[in-house]
Amino acid sequence: MIDYRSDNTGRAAPEILEALVEANNGTALGYGGDEWTAHLQERFSDLFETSVRVFPVATGTAANALSLAAISPPWGVVYCSELAHINTSEANAAGFFGGGLKLAPVAGTHGRIDAEALAQTLTAIQPGQLHRGQPAAVNMTQASDLGTVYRLDEVRAVGEAAKSRKLHVHMDGARFANALARLNCSPADMTWRAGVDILSFGCTKNGGALCDAIVVFNPELVDGLAIQLRRAGQVWSKMRFASAQLMAYIENGLWLRLAQSSNAIAARIAEGVGTLPGVRLLAPVEVNEIFLETTPDILDALEREGFLFYRRSKVLGRFVCRFDTTEAEADALIATIRNAAAPARAAE
Amino acid sequence: MIDYRSDNTGRAAPEILEALVEANNGTALGYGGDEWTAHLQERFSDLFETSVRVFPVATGTAANALSLAAISPPWGVVYCSELAHINTSEANAAGFFGGGLKLAPVAGTHGRIDAEALAQTLTAIQPGQLHRGQPAAVNMTQASDLGTVYRLDEVRAVGEAAKSRKLHVHMDGARFANALARLNCSPADMTWRAGVDILSFGCTKNGGALCDAIVVFNPELVDGLAIQLRRAGQVWSKMRFASAQLMAYIENGLWLRLAQSSNAIAARIAEGVGTLPGVRLLAPVEVNEIFLETTPDILDALEREGFLFYRRSKVLGRFVCRFDTTEAEADALIATIRNAAAPARAAE
Amino acid sequence: MIDYRSDNTGRAAPEILEALVEANNGTALGYGGDEWTAHLQERFSDLFETSVRVFPVATGTAANALSLAAISPPWGVVYCSELAHINTSEANAAGFFGGGLKLAPVAGTHGRIDAEALAQTLTAIQPGQLHRGQPAAVNMTQASDLGTVYRLDEVRAVGEAAKSRKLHVHMDGARFANALARLNCSPADMTWRAGVDILSFGCTKNGGALCDAIVVFNPELVDGLAIQLRRAGQVWSKMRFASAQLMAYIENGLWLRLAQSSNAIAARIAEGVGTLPGVRLLAPVEVNEIFLETTPDILDALEREGFLFYRRSKVLGRFVCRFDTTEAEADALIATIRNAAAPARAAE
Amino acid sequence: MIDYRSDNTGRAAPEILEALVEANNGTALGYGGDEWTAHLQERFSDLFETSVRVFPVATGTAANALSLAAISPPWGVVYCSELAHINTSEANAAGFFGGGLKLAPVAGTHGRIDAEALAQTLTAIQPGQLHRGQPAAVNMTQASDLGTVYRLDEVRAVGEAAKSRKLHVHMDGARFANALARLNCSPADMTWRAGVDILSFGCTKNGGALCDAIVVFNPELVDGLAIQLRRAGQVWSKMRFASAQLMAYIENGLWLRLAQSSNAIAARIAEGVGTLPGVRLLAPVEVNEIFLETTPDILDALEREGFLFYRRSKVLGRFVCRFDTTEAEADALIATIRNAAAPARAAE
Repeated sequence: MIDYRSDNTGRAAPEILEALVEANNGTALGYGGDEWTAHLQERFSDLFETSVRVFPVATGTAANALSLAAISPPWGVVYCSELAHINTSEANAAGFFGGGLKLAPVAGTHGRIDAEALAQTLTAIQPGQLHRGQPAAVNMTQASDLGTVYRLDEVRAVGEAAKSRKLHVHMDGARFANALARLNCSPADMTWRAGVDILSFGCTKNGGALCDAIVVFNPELVDGLAIQLRRAGQVWSKMRFASAQLMAYIENGLWLRLAQSSNAIAARIAEGVGTLPGVRLLAPVEVNEIFLETTPDILDALEREGFLFYRRSKVLGRFVCRFDTTEAEADALIATIRNAAAPARAAE
Repeated sequence: MIDYRSDNTGRAAPEILEALVEANNGTALGYGGDEWTAHLQERFSDLFETSVRVFPVATGTAANALSLAAISPPWGVVYCSELAHINTSEANAAGFFGGGLKLAPVAGTHGRIDAEALAQTLTAIQPGQLHRGQPAAVNMTQASDLGTVYRLDEVRAVGEAAKSRKLHVHMDGARFANALARLNCSPADMTWRAGVDILSFGCTKNGGALCDAIVVFNPELVDGLAIQLRRAGQVWSKMRFASAQLMAYIENGLWLRLAQSSNAIAARIAEGVGTLPGVRLLAPVEVNEIFLETTPDILDALEREGFLFYRRSKVLGRFVCRFDTTEAEADALIATIRNAAAPARAAE
Repeated sequence: MIDYRSDNTGRAAPEILEALVEANNGTALGYGGDEWTAHLQERFSDLFETSVRVFPVATGTAANALSLAAISPPWGVVYCSELAHINTSEANAAGFFGGGLKLAPVAGTHGRIDAEALAQTLTAIQPGQLHRGQPAAVNMTQASDLGTVYRLDEVRAVGEAAKSRKLHVHMDGARFANALARLNCSPADMTWRAGVDILSFGCTKNGGALCDAIVVFNPELVDGLAIQLRRAGQVWSKMRFASAQLMAYIENGLWLRLAQSSNAIAARIAEGVGTLPGVRLLAPVEVNEIFLETTPDILDALEREGFLFYRRSKVLGRFVCRFDTTEAEADALIATIRNAAAPARAAE
Repeated sequence: MIDYRSDNTGRAAPEILEALVEANNGTALGYGGDEWTAHLQERFSDLFETSVRVFPVATGTAANALSLAAISPPWGVVYCSELAHINTSEANAAGFFGGGLKLAPVAGTHGRIDAEALAQTLTAIQPGQLHRGQPAAVNMTQASDLGTVYRLDEVRAVGEAAKSRKLHVHMDGARFANALARLNCSPADMTWRAGVDILSFGCTKNGGALCDAIVVFNPELVDGLAIQLRRAGQVWSKMRFASAQLMAYIENGLWLRLAQSSNAIAARIAEGVGTLPGVRLLAPVEVNEIFLETTPDILDALEREGFLFYRRSKVLGRFVCRFDTTEAEADALIATIRNAAAPARAAE
């Protein structure tokens, strides 16, 4: 059984669990008052080249929903892609944590929003229309839910469109490392330098075990968020075990190596099958996800051969590469698709 | 520095971290669809001698607030002790998750509520008074926030008072193992057989690392809670790392051994200082917490000598024993208190 | 100045205010325990040919948001038209009262949703996908926000699509009387007989003063809603003054006469200008609203001549007829548009 | 049947309904954009001798809960009397509108909070204790729920205790006019000059029909509240009918005359029965409410004779005087109590 279901079906990177085990030493003040969490602030501030506040949280849903609640009042509207994870997949978490805040889709391509479309949407809303939800924030999912990335100028353009109307900007970085590895830029350039106020910093999907984080660039957001995290049940008493994971994650570039690996496997698969007859990539493969539009026969064959993947419809399959997916596993997938596609080719 | 600040300043039990590391093997379906979580259901059902549903969550606050939200509508009133952790210490989490539900104090002794007082409170409220919050549920904190425990007949009496008005019953078991070790009864007798519908099952304070759990006895509560957990950001995608901790926690009686140890240390301290002049135990020491009402001099001396503890006022200190607090540490505390109390004795 | 801005800029029908004044007699139990409110239940049950529960509320927003909160859990999704008032115009009220519930647009024409599109949307969602918002309810706005009406078979088709997936059905009847007058059917046929569980019963836009109502057909919804209304601040202590308005509204067919009048004026205008060159009706004029897509010159001319209306863009104007808009006012509008359109015609 | 159940069982003052009817003239912009609402701002600013913002709302519960939500974050604690209406009687409305904010009782006498007790409570809470609800605001109910009033120096003392910890101050003035009539001071002295930020301005209990109001003294609260009112369904589209009531209410001192009348009747009753054997006033009668602790026989006799009142227990009855309760009705009550008490006297 070769597993392409999700990057969250995978193991944790051994380095991360080792760090967790090493943190099991002596006593430490609870709820983030420990040394590990203090160091975490420093290390992330170095990483992002500015003073940031890092809050470890249990899940990406918590990171997203609490971030949005921090940048939008309950009567606010948060603009995002129709396909954004916050819109399709978090069981109304944003509305819950945000006291009823509303998500509104903005047009764009392949899971991204388009800065121009955002600007037009905002132009149509005049200030003072109290009967409407009030424009409050913008979300970018980087990498997107179709496995594409915003280029730096695209992030900046969305950031500018938002800032010109005094909207806050949230980046859902569930696959932040994968996007960063793809763009080969600095974390700072992809975030606060481009207008991002607050970041859901993913770790779990890329080799983490039990935590993600919120990284706050805009210091005005910190105090409210700190207390909100408490009442949201997202502040571990033994926080050191979370902070230690996050430090190990970025230590010596581990996170980027893991992301480069899964990105490379995905690229290998895309190259191996993308031009086969009867096979279409739903979106450019820019990180570690591949969406294949193909024939039912090919997807049936993959299931028969024991490949695990998420079949969204008869003809659409999602394949996600984990940090430890191997080239051999990629080649097995490619070969099976090629074989299954062969009759189609032969029949042409 | 000897640390009596809290049981959450402690390490994790090595067995629990070993189990976590061992779970890092192969791929597994996300969000609780894995084998570890399936086994967890079975093991806890065995443990509680009935079919239960176990949901691992990140923190005790999440366990409590989500449990209360599951058993009270937003217009409900949840009765609890004035001193209950849900009332004093969770930053309005119950109100948040419960959509505005209200906590109302009921009288009792040493952090417990009294069944008679509860019954009287309920008698004064006539059905159909829509302008009031509607009686919905009762909370017992077992062990209580003053380190005492409800006897079995007390749990049952509260349960009966609640059931006679169709109220649900929640037990906050942040120190469930300590209470169980004290009463030396079965988990079933202390919960569902006494009327408990839903339990916050603590693990972190007693040797866990990053998770606690909600145990549901009343099957009607399961479906709503399952989806609520999603939107609350409390469902880890790599759930196996949480479930593995919880299984190790109860395996071979580990949890009870850990709780017996911290209980015994606390009893040793209570015995060692409880009858000194100028020293008073605020409540009977029944589990692993000691509340000392004493002179400012004695508490000053302890701080000077490097003991860490939570000083609630000039004359009140809380001392909590961890599973790995040693007899030597207990004796050091006793000796320091005795020495500091000696002048008082000499002066008598 | 002739006012076509909205039907809520208008007066109240004198009969309604007279009833309000007549209710000012003697003392009466508060919060709906009065005789007027008891009679209201009977009268509306007669009107709808079934036992209903009527709750007077202050505004249509309250009626809608509380109705939706009654039929959807906080993690629910409510399907509606993109153009539905609940989606565009109530400042996130549904998300607020519903604890974070989510509105999701469904395709359709002219402000209505299409039963087929709803069925397809629901088919794509498999039960048990806990990471998604859970399908809970459907909203129809009757008449729609573009001034069109669902035919009876269309209401039934939407109702059936909803019921086949156990979704509740809400009708936003802010202009219920206008729709009823148009279809010339019974209130029962347009609601519960077609699957509607709960109705926002509009009164204000059609001659009321200070209240609308929620009409509940599904008795399971009553108890929760009754207490929810309390904590929502929607239960007047002197309820008789609201109930009296609602009784006068339906007495002797007043409501239908008022709606017939505004519908007729709108039809007159549509006929008078609908076929002019450079003038297009954005949607069929089926009740008392006219959306004119036309040239900037024509809309400018109307503003210059002192007509008040809601100009949604340079080329789109909304004109709403009140119950007391006169034929003379309609003819003045028609004449001004004709004159302004004349050069266009001359230039052809 | 003589009715002492509540001041909300009464009629509206004819002047108020006349004003409502007179407002039924011409068209007017909806949602508060009308002339009546504009004048209302001016008139209340004159009345309060400072620039205020007035928002008419449907009920006192809405006024209270929305005011509290405006001055406390969801993680805030609002201090109030145990007996405060917001605490006992609004079905958790404050928790609902405030996203889970918490009410905490503070000691005091006869339904008031004591400034000293408030200060002590606040002293015990150190800044930065994120696990607790965060002190945010203070509520005074003026007149109180036991029919007493805060003297001006008491209002100021509570205000100062609040301000010294940067807490906001809300006054629940459901019976504001009664308190004002009693103290014979200016509205300004009883509110903003004493530290009040926001006021629930009651009208219904003192001769109004269908509206109360929120009066905002602190301009920072206005923008958020304005949009919050929209999503709360508390902004009537035909607002003029509410604003006209509120203007008539204060015109030519009507409100004070009405309050003086009900206060005087209550004083008459208190004088007539307060010193009878077997009769005790639960609290000084300072406005229009009388709480009689007496024998079951006396309360039984009153019920037998057809008096309507709220019997809180066998021996406690609440009697509320309306603006139109007559001296004859008072004397009838007095006589019946005297007669019923006579045997007790005879038996002495």
